Amino acid sequence: MPPRLRGAVCSRQQSTRRTASPDTISALKDLLGVRMSTSRSVLDQHGTDESYHDVTPPDAVAFVESTEEVAEVIKICAATRTPVIPFGAGTSIEGHISAVAGGVSVDLSGMNGILKLDQENMSIKVEAGVTREQLNADLRATGLMFPVDPGANATIGGMVATNASGTTTVKYGNMKTNVLSLTAVMADGRIIKTGSKTRKSSAGYDLTRLLIGAEGTLAVVTEVELRLSGVPEAEKAMICSFDKMKDAIDTCTTVMQMGIPVARMEMMDENVVDAVNRYSNLDNPLRPLLIIEHHGSVGELEQQSRVVQEIARDFGAMDIEVASTAEDRKRLWSGRHSVWHAVLSQVPGSRGFSADVAVPFSKLTGAVVETQQDLKNSGLFGTIVGHVGDGNFHVLIPFTDDNKEHLGRMKAFSHRLVKRALACGGTCTGEHGIGIGKMDYLPMEHGEAVDFMYTIKKALDPLDIMNPGKIFYANTHSN
Amino acid sequence: MPPRLRGAVCSRQQSTRRTASPDTISALKDLLGVRMSTSRSVLDQHGTDESYHDVTPPDAVAFVESTEEVAEVIKICAATRTPVIPFGAGTSIEGHISAVAGGVSVDLSGMNGILKLDQENMSIKVEAGVTREQLNADLRATGLMFPVDPGANATIGGMVATNASGTTTVKYGNMKTNVLSLTAVMADGRIIKTGSKTRKSSAGYDLTRLLIGAEGTLAVVTEVELRLSGVPEAEKAMICSFDKMKDAIDTCTTVMQMGIPVARMEMMDENVVDAVNRYSNLDNPLRPLLIIEHHGSVGELEQQSRVVQEIARDFGAMDIEVASTAEDRKRLWSGRHSVWHAVLSQVPGSRGFSADVAVPFSKLTGAVVETQQDLKNSGLFGTIVGHVGDGNFHVLIPFTDDNKEHLGRMKAFSHRLVKRALACGGTCTGEHGIGIGKMDYLPMEHGEAVDFMYTIKKALDPLDIMNPGKIFYANTHSN
Repeated sequence: MPPRLRGAVCSRQQSTRRTASPDTISALKDLLGVRMSTSRSVLDQHGTDESYHDVTPPDAVAFVESTEEVAEVIKICAATRTPVIPFGAGTSIEGHISAVAGGVSVDLSGMNGILKLDQENMSIKVEAGVTREQLNADLRATGLMFPVDPGANATIGGMVATNASGTTTVKYGNMKTNVLSLTAVMADGRIIKTGSKTRKSSAGYDLTRLLIGAEGTLAVVTEVELRLSGVPEAEKAMICSFDKMKDAIDTCTTVMQMGIPVARMEMMDENVVDAVNRYSNLDNPLRPLLIIEHHGSVGELEQQSRVVQEIARDFGAMDIEVASTAEDRKRLWSGRHSVWHAVLSQVPGSRGFSADVAVPFSKLTGAVVETQQDLKNSGLFGTIVGHVGDGNFHVLIPFTDDNKEHLGRMKAFSHRLVKRALACGGTCTGEHGIGIGKMDYLPMEHGEAVDFMYTIKKALDPLDIMNPGKIFYANTHSN
Repeated sequence: MPPRLRGAVCSRQQSTRRTASPDTISALKDLLGVRMSTSRSVLDQHGTDESYHDVTPPDAVAFVESTEEVAEVIKICAATRTPVIPFGAGTSIEGHISAVAGGVSVDLSGMNGILKLDQENMSIKVEAGVTREQLNADLRATGLMFPVDPGANATIGGMVATNASGTTTVKYGNMKTNVLSLTAVMADGRIIKTGSKTRKSSAGYDLTRLLIGAEGTLAVVTEVELRLSGVPEAEKAMICSFDKMKDAIDTCTTVMQMGIPVARMEMMDENVVDAVNRYSNLDNPLRPLLIIEHHGSVGELEQQSRVVQEIARDFGAMDIEVASTAEDRKRLWSGRHSVWHAVLSQVPGSRGFSADVAVPFSKLTGAVVETQQDLKNSGLFGTIVGHVGDGNFHVLIPFTDDNKEHLGRMKAFSHRLVKRALACGGTCTGEHGIGIGKMDYLPMEHGEAVDFMYTIKKALDPLDIMNPGKIFYANTHSN
């Protein structure tokens, strides 16, 4: 028998705390001068993301300005086994930037340079700290766009870390589809370049797609070459409502199965509609809504939109409204874009919890309907929005830290939701990542495969300094 | 300083030969009975693929019938550090199935069961030995298809191993796009399942895309769940010719940059046209040809085809012929489909060498034109065909083993071609893989990143039994 690889699945031990030593802090100070901070407010800000997780600030924050500086920071940290936690915009929602084992937060927001636009090749190279909105503003005059849109104004580096996606993924794909190559600093401080500018390659292991979604646990990504898409000639959106959620989702699955091209396909339940109505003083009927958008030539959109309307009517769609002008589309989408704030505004002083599961299409209707019922049974106020074209949906629940009983019910609900998704062949996270919030579920979803993920982690980061305590529980046996 | 990972880049040592011992053979015999063979002809067949590489037969062939049997074979081989070489249809062209270090060929062609079609979810689970043609024949009545088409009737497992793609990749993507999940047997005999049936997930490292393109060096893939596409409502193809290659390719890049949806976009140079004319008794004009195909609704195709024709005319296209019926399309494509045999038939008794590079769009015209000139300067008969929508092109050269001088010129040409592709940011292989033929080029393309690929290899296959001697040179320092 070959030696069995020893795995992470059974152990639940957290990473031990490895506080940055005075020597480490001093070496970083020598390297970065005033761009190294240990001020309380800076530390607290870098331990906080948009999640429901507790604040765990780092011991120091390094505001880096180049790939080479990141490499130096990692070498300094590696010398004392000090954890390195990459930080972009702080918009992650599973505690990815939390310094659970102490260490140094590497803030890449200053690395926000657009390095090279290649219009002919429809690609652009940017530093990891460039935000999505900055990038698209920069592209405005080119007729090109970067289509991945997770909602938040995340950095491109952060979007790489969590394999971000969003409303447009049904047409344009997620980060794995839209990243051509990466520059990354590995755990030993060496700088590598993965992938290439070509649209395809079969040359060696796909380190690009290994690092995308690795949540900073294997490398710090410093530069990203992105595939761009042409701004569509025309866009057309349709909104409609249904008596029952089932009819809304059956409309979606039919559209997908018929292969009708859609650029976005979003579902909102009646609770979302209610919240948006109150927040924005609207009077949409309190029924599940569907918004479907097409991108293409005017002629294509006409035809696609007509077929989709027919399908929707077959499932009993009401109040169908179609928007072709930019202004009308903006109005039509405004409700969807304000969901997060609208829902939180329903509970004063609340923060938001966002569940994030994806299931196979064939299971989507059942999973959403059961989840609605579960919310009701749990006596929880929660709202469901879905990137239904991808089988992915979120449940947004506002909560306050002082109401422990409510928190408990919320966590129990979330647990049942993930179990429900896994039971029908789904995933515990469609786009938010594992972070510290879903570590229990990774082995439930992937079984022994997690051992091999962890084997890769140990091989590439033998000192366990790269964002430790995320994705996997530390394994005392294997250190 | 952290410990430097020791790498594979510098060493060029081949794997040492590790012949399967009599005990290993005997254990395999006990497991498989008559499905274990050491007959000369069976061994020779399993050391031969469609490449220009020498035949290196294995010591034994195990005709496996289940994932569990593969696991047992690997455990038996691991006990004596005997190499395990997965074998599908033998259609690879970089010596992937060659037993360069001895060992046991694991023939998966008997694992050709269609395990589960899920029409609602548009996915299908198959055993790795199912061939592409078998799969699509099986799907014929469903209105669904598996779109990846590398030309050869490869097995799905083989297509996973090399990250296969082909003429339709410009629209439907390659294997990385179209595989949902894998069942794989790892180097210690453990069976894992990667990925899930969902269209997206951010749960942990992407083992699916790590194993796709790993050429059997990390695991033996035994089952594959594939994403299917709807058979398009209609298809429309156009063929046209140009005075100059540059105009043909400029047409392609313009179509791509304008974002006009194409399902195939193939280029053939005048030498291909000449070979096809002779082979099939045709009289196509001896000029570079372009074939562009669209898939979609009748209305969409009409419009797309019109725009593409306009663009082609702007670049001086001649003899534009459009085919809408299945029969006309078949005739129009017949030349492209017969290229391999047509080219080989030009040199009696020859085998074929196929170069396979991809470059960024913006460099495609230059790379192809220079390559044509290089062929001419080298006095070589070679033909260029390209999946130009992906920036990928092949040079097919017929050769005979006895003409050493010609072989030398061919290899020198191939070397210059790869260097040319790498110099403009391209890849040494767009779809064939590294195998034993491109091992020198992997470090040229990926630099130190190869060290980290090799680190993963050593971590997941510490005994170096999984298809050793492919992708990387064995590194004496690190064993």
